Amino acid sequence: MESKSLTKNKTGKENTAIYSRACKVITGGVSRNTIFREPHPYYVSHAKGSYITDIKGVERIDFANNMASLIHGHAHPNITNAVTKQLKKGTAYTMGTESEVDFAELLINRSVGFEKIRFVNSGTEAVMTMIKASRAYTGKPKIAKAEGAYHGTYDYAEMSQTANPSNWGDINKPNTVPLVDGTPQGVVDDVVIFPFNDIERTLNILDQNADKIACVLIDPVPHRIGLFPASNQFIEAIYKWTRKNNAILAFDEVVTFRVNYGGAQDNYSVVPDLTAMGKIIGGGFPIGALAGKSEIMQVLNPRQAILKHPHSGTFSANPISTTAGRIAMEMFDENAILRLNELTKKAIYQIKESIKIADVPISITGDGSMFRLHFTETAPRLYREAYQPKQIKNIVTELLDYMFLKEHIIMINTCACMFATTLEQKEIDRLSQALLNGFRLIKPKLLR
Amino acid sequence: MESKSLTKNKTGKENTAIYSRACKVITGGVSRNTIFREPHPYYVSHAKGSYITDIKGVERIDFANNMASLIHGHAHPNITNAVTKQLKKGTAYTMGTESEVDFAELLINRSVGFEKIRFVNSGTEAVMTMIKASRAYTGKPKIAKAEGAYHGTYDYAEMSQTANPSNWGDINKPNTVPLVDGTPQGVVDDVVIFPFNDIERTLNILDQNADKIACVLIDPVPHRIGLFPASNQFIEAIYKWTRKNNAILAFDEVVTFRVNYGGAQDNYSVVPDLTAMGKIIGGGFPIGALAGKSEIMQVLNPRQAILKHPHSGTFSANPISTTAGRIAMEMFDENAILRLNELTKKAIYQIKESIKIADVPISITGDGSMFRLHFTETAPRLYREAYQPKQIKNIVTELLDYMFLKEHIIMINTCACMFATTLEQKEIDRLSQALLNGFRLIKPKLLR
Repeated sequence: MESKSLTKNKTGKENTAIYSRACKVITGGVSRNTIFREPHPYYVSHAKGSYITDIKGVERIDFANNMASLIHGHAHPNITNAVTKQLKKGTAYTMGTESEVDFAELLINRSVGFEKIRFVNSGTEAVMTMIKASRAYTGKPKIAKAEGAYHGTYDYAEMSQTANPSNWGDINKPNTVPLVDGTPQGVVDDVVIFPFNDIERTLNILDQNADKIACVLIDPVPHRIGLFPASNQFIEAIYKWTRKNNAILAFDEVVTFRVNYGGAQDNYSVVPDLTAMGKIIGGGFPIGALAGKSEIMQVLNPRQAILKHPHSGTFSANPISTTAGRIAMEMFDENAILRLNELTKKAIYQIKESIKIADVPISITGDGSMFRLHFTETAPRLYREAYQPKQIKNIVTELLDYMFLKEHIIMINTCACMFATTLEQKEIDRLSQALLNGFRLIKPKLLR
Repeated sequence: MESKSLTKNKTGKENTAIYSRACKVITGGVSRNTIFREPHPYYVSHAKGSYITDIKGVERIDFANNMASLIHGHAHPNITNAVTKQLKKGTAYTMGTESEVDFAELLINRSVGFEKIRFVNSGTEAVMTMIKASRAYTGKPKIAKAEGAYHGTYDYAEMSQTANPSNWGDINKPNTVPLVDGTPQGVVDDVVIFPFNDIERTLNILDQNADKIACVLIDPVPHRIGLFPASNQFIEAIYKWTRKNNAILAFDEVVTFRVNYGGAQDNYSVVPDLTAMGKIIGGGFPIGALAGKSEIMQVLNPRQAILKHPHSGTFSANPISTTAGRIAMEMFDENAILRLNELTKKAIYQIKESIKIADVPISITGDGSMFRLHFTETAPRLYREAYQPKQIKNIVTELLDYMFLKEHIIMINTCACMFATTLEQKEIDRLSQALLNGFRLIKPKLLR
């Protein structure tokens, strides 16, 4: 006989049936490739804190938190209550709201680099606006970005995002590899690719385009590159280069703002000129933001006699996203961050124990409340070291499927975890034990 | 003595005080230029149906509906209730939701041109994805768009959005005019500009770039051009041209989907290949969608052996936006559309009466539940006819300020209205009477 709570959660629906309907109307059956898994995605009934229950009544622990965007897990009562109140007053107007101002003040106060801010609808829009603002301010057309880094879907920002050995070229001058078929040659020509954390090569590459680069775009702990932090020397070197060459140091902290009170940028001795944010600052709702030096942000100021960068957005700074975001960030204070980062360290420690016990060639990288597993004896330090060939990707998929289906644990599809404040020691114990079981399962293939 | 309801609405706050705080943290004090007005924006306390109350307790009738995005006005109880329920179950997951599938089915069933759909976070993202998908499918780099048309903030889509007599060039070959300073030359080179509704010139211009054009981007009732519909002959001619030249007919229906059950495209004898949507389909929450032919949408399918257009988005198809959107669109059925479009016709009729009575050189254009005033005797039929010189823009601002401050009526900053189903005859009477007063006010300047 099934337990009462399990029965209660059952909807009588099948994941395969919903996916079959989905495939008839949605291309590939999903709007986000990240939720797809073979042979079909799983559909959510409801979620609370760090637990998600699917339509079959299976409850899983969530270490993905909607791709790092839910810093307080699911349906946090403080956020739900505040949003419910706002809902009754409306969700968007062709007028201002004090909620936008309250939230702007909160974020501005978190980092010395934030003098002015502007809200948009997504991380993609934030990065796009940051790049366009950099060009408008400097009058220069090119951007420089790191090979392998993910920065959303603006085509300039996605060059070389999935560069691989067949197309990445010489490390001294990496190719600019388009992600999407039919990308105009003009985009390729205006993006300079550098190897993350490789100071000498990066400076050489930047120097070759010195008079054309509007901004150097940096995710300080780039998930897709390998989720290891930029070294302080690397950031300092790029900072100095941008000072010398009238270029903007543009941080993408859409994922990494969680690392410290003022984002991952708190870890460095220099301050970026512009910062793009998203994910956690929306409290579970769509948002993006661009913050930085007043002088540069002026290009977006509609009161300027000459408006260099006209910009708007129907749902930008809507009071649902700014209310939820403000509550979420108020709760994500210095103590909460300290606790969460400590818990993450504990998890990494326990997983390293699991790696030792299972005796497998696996390593861990990470920062703040994020970490990622790599299937190499020593942790990678560069994108080309972290790059996974097909046979490793298959093993990763097997491990993730095992975790999801047998251990009922949700991780990000790169074998990463992005923690929420709702996690406790007991979930960490479940994670490290489940991974131990998983490591043992894949060990024969890893050693082959 | 003030009425009880007015007192109740008062917050003791001043719009100037909030704006002064805003200016310290937000560049120009606003995240959306559309909400800015001199000397400061007004801030909302709450809204319900077609009425918005500001923080001073002043209630206004809303004919802007958050730039055409609220088809059922503010805080519709059906939407508020459904969203409140979903809130308790969570707002976003790294897993699927049936809500996405339900909503996809609803939209797919509304238009013969929608075979497959995919959700994104905004109209800007929808148009960007449509353009990228067109390039990926055709392998060609250029797009063609109409002079003066607004399509969001993706730079390719915003070329010549505000072209003016000093830079628009020869009508036979309009210049591609960047909107934002520092726009790369590559973007300018890859956007072909044509004069909307001018068949012969447009075909000539397209022919000159025939082998390079991935898509012809059309807003069928372009607000910023002048809010008059594309003629059927114009759309047919472009359709035929795209068939002949292996290009995609890409409709931007972010604003115009409200015109009919299946969008403004229902009015034409041919069917677009791809359609971008946004605004009303989110039920008051951030959303965007791309729908169209299965064969083309396949470029986004993650199950294809070769994925031509990898694409994702943290909040894409989140269950809040898809739930609110589904409820809103269910309520916006054929009867609701018929009633709303009839009410709009009635409003246009009454405003034309006001124009006659005031005896002013003002004309009206529009379609479905939208219309726009022009300050010329006869209605413009082309962008360059509709273009307003500075002295007219100043008169428009004076009229809009009068409407907002004295008549307590909110219009869109182009002197346009985008109706919601919550409007009734009494609000139409208020609007036409208020405009009559406004016309009399500006008449001396108009005739100067």
